[in-house]
Amino acid sequence: MELGMRLERVRTNLNAEEQSAIGRLIEWLRIPSISTDPAYRAEVRRAAEWAADRLRDAGLAPEMKETGTPGAPGHPIVWAYHPGPAGYSGPHVLFYGHYDVQPPDPLELWESPPFEPVIKPAERGEDVPGERVVARGAVDDKGQVASFLEALRAWHAEAGEIPVRLTVLLEGEEESGSVNLERFVKEHDTHLRSCDVCVISDTGMLARGEPAITYGVRGLAYTEVILHGPNQDLHSGMWGGRCPNPINELSKVLARLWDQDRRVTIPGFYDDVLEPTPEERRAWAELPLDYPAMLGKIGLTKEADIGEKGWTALEREWARPTCDINGIFGGYTGKGAKTVIPTHASAKISFRLVADQDPGKIVRAFRGWLDANTPPGCRWEFIDHGGGFPGTVSTDSPYLTAARSALEAAAGGKQAHLIKSGGSIPVVGLLKGQLGLDTLLVGFGLDDDRVHSPNEKFELDCFRLGMHTHACLLSEFAEMGG
Amino acid sequence: MELGMRLERVRTNLNAEEQSAIGRLIEWLRIPSISTDPAYRAEVRRAAEWAADRLRDAGLAPEMKETGTPGAPGHPIVWAYHPGPAGYSGPHVLFYGHYDVQPPDPLELWESPPFEPVIKPAERGEDVPGERVVARGAVDDKGQVASFLEALRAWHAEAGEIPVRLTVLLEGEEESGSVNLERFVKEHDTHLRSCDVCVISDTGMLARGEPAITYGVRGLAYTEVILHGPNQDLHSGMWGGRCPNPINELSKVLARLWDQDRRVTIPGFYDDVLEPTPEERRAWAELPLDYPAMLGKIGLTKEADIGEKGWTALEREWARPTCDINGIFGGYTGKGAKTVIPTHASAKISFRLVADQDPGKIVRAFRGWLDANTPPGCRWEFIDHGGGFPGTVSTDSPYLTAARSALEAAAGGKQAHLIKSGGSIPVVGLLKGQLGLDTLLVGFGLDDDRVHSPNEKFELDCFRLGMHTHACLLSEFAEMGG
Repeated sequence: MELGMRLERVRTNLNAEEQSAIGRLIEWLRIPSISTDPAYRAEVRRAAEWAADRLRDAGLAPEMKETGTPGAPGHPIVWAYHPGPAGYSGPHVLFYGHYDVQPPDPLELWESPPFEPVIKPAERGEDVPGERVVARGAVDDKGQVASFLEALRAWHAEAGEIPVRLTVLLEGEEESGSVNLERFVKEHDTHLRSCDVCVISDTGMLARGEPAITYGVRGLAYTEVILHGPNQDLHSGMWGGRCPNPINELSKVLARLWDQDRRVTIPGFYDDVLEPTPEERRAWAELPLDYPAMLGKIGLTKEADIGEKGWTALEREWARPTCDINGIFGGYTGKGAKTVIPTHASAKISFRLVADQDPGKIVRAFRGWLDANTPPGCRWEFIDHGGGFPGTVSTDSPYLTAARSALEAAAGGKQAHLIKSGGSIPVVGLLKGQLGLDTLLVGFGLDDDRVHSPNEKFELDCFRLGMHTHACLLSEFAEMGG
Repeated sequence: MELGMRLERVRTNLNAEEQSAIGRLIEWLRIPSISTDPAYRAEVRRAAEWAADRLRDAGLAPEMKETGTPGAPGHPIVWAYHPGPAGYSGPHVLFYGHYDVQPPDPLELWESPPFEPVIKPAERGEDVPGERVVARGAVDDKGQVASFLEALRAWHAEAGEIPVRLTVLLEGEEESGSVNLERFVKEHDTHLRSCDVCVISDTGMLARGEPAITYGVRGLAYTEVILHGPNQDLHSGMWGGRCPNPINELSKVLARLWDQDRRVTIPGFYDDVLEPTPEERRAWAELPLDYPAMLGKIGLTKEADIGEKGWTALEREWARPTCDINGIFGGYTGKGAKTVIPTHASAKISFRLVADQDPGKIVRAFRGWLDANTPPGCRWEFIDHGGGFPGTVSTDSPYLTAARSALEAAAGGKQAHLIKSGGSIPVVGLLKGQLGLDTLLVGFGLDDDRVHSPNEKFELDCFRLGMHTHACLLSEFAEMGG
């Protein structure tokens, strides 16, 4: 049967099976797979097995890959490889998702128990129809992974097989730091290097009714610096003005991190930055985003639209590296007054990075800059809290084109936006840094889905769009093989 | 009897009574008059009554002046007024001291119980004789007040009366913020305005064997600033580079508090500063102080000798105003990494002031400066934690001359150093600010007396010097009347 006709039947199947697909998702959401809490270890495995069963339903042969060490056992990775149809010459696609969830605290703010999923009206005004499923993990990430699993099921049911060469990797530790993922990726280096592109559904759309593909995320380098001065707390009467006050000195050094144009002053910081193309900047400028309204939501006026000179707010988020102090501490911070000159002061300083910046190189440059800016009589202590590479898919990439087509077909002809994210998705940086593998972030969440918060939800319209998009995307990839 | 002969007899009495004077001090030190802890309320009063009894022994008629309000009762002030001998025309002297003590914590570091005073060898190398009394309050301030009480006792015993017009004010809340002192001073404004000079023994000597008069202390203005940005914590991926980060912005503003020469940049900050005279600077330069050694004791090398350009370390401590950040806080300060842009960041900022700076004026100038430096889209919250005026006695003052003579006589001809202190003694600023009254700080403590720390001590040589100095000082003041 011709590919287009098979896709038709797959999509008809998805429509016919929608209620049972929702039922299956609810089943999965009932399993409290809280990876960070050892008390839920068995539940985490149960959620993994549930996903493996769905892969089996789709004709795959999933394996439970154990992770961790005997002393520190991890949660299993659900792994499945499908070589694709005989004679397949299209891309080898890696699908990554996670089946673990955040703890549901604070429990008292949930309107219904977090692991007793309920269907409620969607949150889009009373005049618009639609429903949502409310539960921990609804959108992050079970609902999004389920949309992919349903597409596999429907392809298997209607076409007899999955039309692409596919590796599925479902992690159970994304919400607890992915501590075993890097080792796993290294151990499966040869296999994973044969992948051509990674697909992840763990992000959002541009807005309600505005499907989007995220084709770039920023990288991260997170550090902590401690400036040491005297070996004991001093009385600011006796010593004020006579010796270095680590808080005064730290403030002065940190202030020099930016110039008048709010550009980072560390030598070489911008060396590897790939600037967005004029076409990208034009396209971004046309996106239906109301930046003043977004500032208003966080209590700020348009005067607060500040950042590196010469770039719009969106460009600054998506395409420019930053330096932020995420924490600062020194001296007396209790109530009232204490006239102390403390022994030290510290700051947590992170850099958001863009392609092709290398977090290790940035951290080395920062250390060198700190050394060159050591206040008299003081010394630095430096802690590297790690980070990750930025990830970007070229807008010319055939995989990106495939994803756009799939999303457009699934959304009834509505064009998908190409967006980036200022955040960092560690697995994207890991796959890019370790394997050179690009990731397509095709996500179906909405701004108000309350990820990591009480009353997390996934709208059924989004679930539906996800299922159809993944069904179409498999067809698109299959077609690339000729 | 001629004044000089009477003083001879007084000093002979002090020598003869030394052991019983030590016994009396030990009795007082046994009373745990911890003013900050309500559990010790009765003990605080007992310590006040003990002091009143000693004043009575010296022929005075002390009163217990209650302080505070019915809802928030304070500790009593021991108050005594003596009009002086008939026809007295010398100065009306106010003696201020405090009978309350700091809590003794941490108890486990005491070598003997804090309220069971013991006599031990002095801490000056094994080849030098001498003893110390170890107890909470030994030097701060019971031992120093006791040296004055013993001088009164001896004058009364040998000369039949105190030779000067004298007001004694012993406070019981110095170690808990002197919360009721300002109101008391206002309520006794008329009486206190008739005083010509205040004498306090609550400071130290220049060094062991180097008696000194402190003729100036710095004032203080202590503030707290909070820079508010967004109304909710933000994700530094989504928002980094797009809106103000209060920690970044606060650091940049604070760094502008000083110029390249480490001078404070607030307009008008130095307007009222009286510079030390060339004679003072010359005299200070000759003081036997080893500044590199002092830096070494706090773990710093001579590179750490930094501060306002153009002044020596001692000049910076004694005669130059400063600005110190005593505390800073913002964002995430726990272990590891959290990529937050916080809603606000705050700092506790204090200014040490010198004559004739006015703390209120400095705080207003600082607020104005902050307003002029408000980062885009942010706003300041400002908290004034109070402070006090600087206090300085002119080196030409006849009272200072009297104190020098007294100290020289008591120390067997050894000249007293004229020193200042970079610290702030609130009562000095209060008396200066409210009444225009100058204070002579004639103190007998040593650097290593462990004020506010475990194993606080007062050396008996210092106690002896104190008793004789106060005996001589009463004579000097009496002589000023002609």
